[in-house]
Amino acid sequence: MLTVDGCLARRRALQEHFQEHDLLLISQPQHIFYLSGFLTRPTELAGQGLNFLLIDGAGECRLLADNMSEAATQHAHVDHVDIWTWYDSMHPAEARLAAAAEALSRLLYNHYAKLAQVAVERAHLPLAAREVLAVAQADDLGPALRQMRRRKYEDELACIRRAIAAAEAGHQAARTNIRAGITEMDLYVEVQAAITRAAGEPIVMMGDFAAGERSGRVGGPPTDNVLQPGDLMIFDLFPRIGGYRADIANTLCAGQPTQEQRDHLAVLQAALQAGEATLRPGVTAAEVYAAGREPIAAAGLGDAFPHHAGHGLGLGHPEPPFLVPESQEILQAGDVVTLEPGAYRRGWGGARIEHNYLITETGYQRLSNHQIGL
Amino acid sequence: MLTVDGCLARRRALQEHFQEHDLLLISQPQHIFYLSGFLTRPTELAGQGLNFLLIDGAGECRLLADNMSEAATQHAHVDHVDIWTWYDSMHPAEARLAAAAEALSRLLYNHYAKLAQVAVERAHLPLAAREVLAVAQADDLGPALRQMRRRKYEDELACIRRAIAAAEAGHQAARTNIRAGITEMDLYVEVQAAITRAAGEPIVMMGDFAAGERSGRVGGPPTDNVLQPGDLMIFDLFPRIGGYRADIANTLCAGQPTQEQRDHLAVLQAALQAGEATLRPGVTAAEVYAAGREPIAAAGLGDAFPHHAGHGLGLGHPEPPFLVPESQEILQAGDVVTLEPGAYRRGWGGARIEHNYLITETGYQRLSNHQIGL
Repeated sequence: MLTVDGCLARRRALQEHFQEHDLLLISQPQHIFYLSGFLTRPTELAGQGLNFLLIDGAGECRLLADNMSEAATQHAHVDHVDIWTWYDSMHPAEARLAAAAEALSRLLYNHYAKLAQVAVERAHLPLAAREVLAVAQADDLGPALRQMRRRKYEDELACIRRAIAAAEAGHQAARTNIRAGITEMDLYVEVQAAITRAAGEPIVMMGDFAAGERSGRVGGPPTDNVLQPGDLMIFDLFPRIGGYRADIANTLCAGQPTQEQRDHLAVLQAALQAGEATLRPGVTAAEVYAAGREPIAAAGLGDAFPHHAGHGLGLGHPEPPFLVPESQEILQAGDVVTLEPGAYRRGWGGARIEHNYLITETGYQRLSNHQIGL
Repeated sequence: MLTVDGCLARRRALQEHFQEHDLLLISQPQHIFYLSGFLTRPTELAGQGLNFLLIDGAGECRLLADNMSEAATQHAHVDHVDIWTWYDSMHPAEARLAAAAEALSRLLYNHYAKLAQVAVERAHLPLAAREVLAVAQADDLGPALRQMRRRKYEDELACIRRAIAAAEAGHQAARTNIRAGITEMDLYVEVQAAITRAAGEPIVMMGDFAAGERSGRVGGPPTDNVLQPGDLMIFDLFPRIGGYRADIANTLCAGQPTQEQRDHLAVLQAALQAGEATLRPGVTAAEVYAAGREPIAAAGLGDAFPHHAGHGLGLGHPEPPFLVPESQEILQAGDVVTLEPGAYRRGWGGARIEHNYLITETGYQRLSNHQIGL
């Protein structure tokens, strides 16, 4: 869970970017969470609505949420919580998103009558909610939030560690259950169950579950594909747990791997180590990519590595920095990144492995501890 | 899956409401799906972006989607698909939602240069996307879509039946696995696994999983609460599967139920039958509510029934008609509704049962077939 101190620090940091503004209006659920700890889960009715976080020029912070989200407001680190009734079980409910814009209108009338300069999430704020702001211009919070999100605070790191620990349970379940004759979907179900149990709460499970011929095509969601003896299967698990993502991968073999398969994995292990060796503040994303690619190319598999060497990790997926050939983004302390070398051969199969890392002042700390290897 | 014919019929029906308009711009994922069959799942990267459906005055229909969603566009029943590259694995990706608004701007410039009258989803369309429309006014598609959604088309009913069939597998798993000593979370995992297997695809599992003392408080997501012998447990399963929701409930007992518990369930069975007996076109939602409440009140449990008697079901949850005391909504053929009588006694426990129904020209057809009863 995000802490009071963390939320306050992030709100202050955001306000540094908007010192002349008398209202910052946040509408994206992940950003309301980032700045207040108020989490609306897509597995609950709270996650289907539209809520708002309002920060005034003095830093006073108000959460506006509908009554389906009331239970979740208990964990909101804000100065005021305003609950409006969307559905009272007595009268028909109005369209939920439109009603949220009307609730915002009433709140603005009551508490923010004289606005001069406001900033909003232009790429998210619905038109109906924009229209109730009695100002000509609305600046964009988006770039500042995107920039801020790279440097993770301590409470965010605690969330990410918790998400990774749950995802590690998923990899253990994959290792325990893989065998010839099982389907990708069966393994997905086992992995999802293990992660849900480890997380202790319902989650939205995203990931690649691709076996046999499908493993040679990078990834994809699980299908009814039945594993054959000797098939490789890629498990790339990127669930969102408690608001943050883990993103860790491994490849397993249904049965005894061949020497060729072991050699293939060894190339990826070397690529992972080569990437790790570059991780420190000041290095460019392109340098990390080049280092991670080198062992794969040296093994003659350069054409079999079609994707990034990794990417930033946090509230979204993927996010900056992008570890790709044309990126001049510079790694900085507080970045959390993945490294995920992979190599895929059509008709033969493919593999990917992945760890998550915190960039520190002096180098890096590996955050994930699942067992890598077939 | 939604059919070509169904999507075309719905687009024509929507255009009936906007005959003077030269562009209808749809942005909510569930409405893009409703009108085109293009489904972006929250369990996939496609579900994290912002895509658009554009229908011009002649009915020509264009889907604008980012490259993470390309695979899903294969199932889109549209005249044109335009894919724009959000992330190429070579360069850092821009903020995804903001980039989508820019992609829309380019598309409008190329294909819809002269717009006079447009309609958008005002409660959803992000401000940044609104701003690229070179028109002074934008009318609201929201009310027309909300009205249309009540009368389900044949292809929608097929989707709902499929979702219900998967949810029924969840109830069977609950019945098989319930016992004293297991936790609500363990049962959630079993139910989720059964539904995922039956659906054949990853899903977002929503539902109430409340046992013992918690069952006396209506519901809530699963916890580590350990079931005690004789505990009641409410299973209210409302997953979204293939774009549509099922919503079916039952209550089970961990061990042998008492006569008092059986009597409690019998009251709810009577309430369900009383509600069913009213289901036909022309009846008001309030009448259905009153009929469903009567047996509960007659048993002295009127105060133990705090919620609606049911509600509409489809792309969202809950949705019109709302079967509540103050609703004058009139049932019509093509409505799909739930009936869900419940009674909850603090400190003793509670129960809820629920079926789904299609309102037909002459009455109703029950859509769900799970076993009701402790």
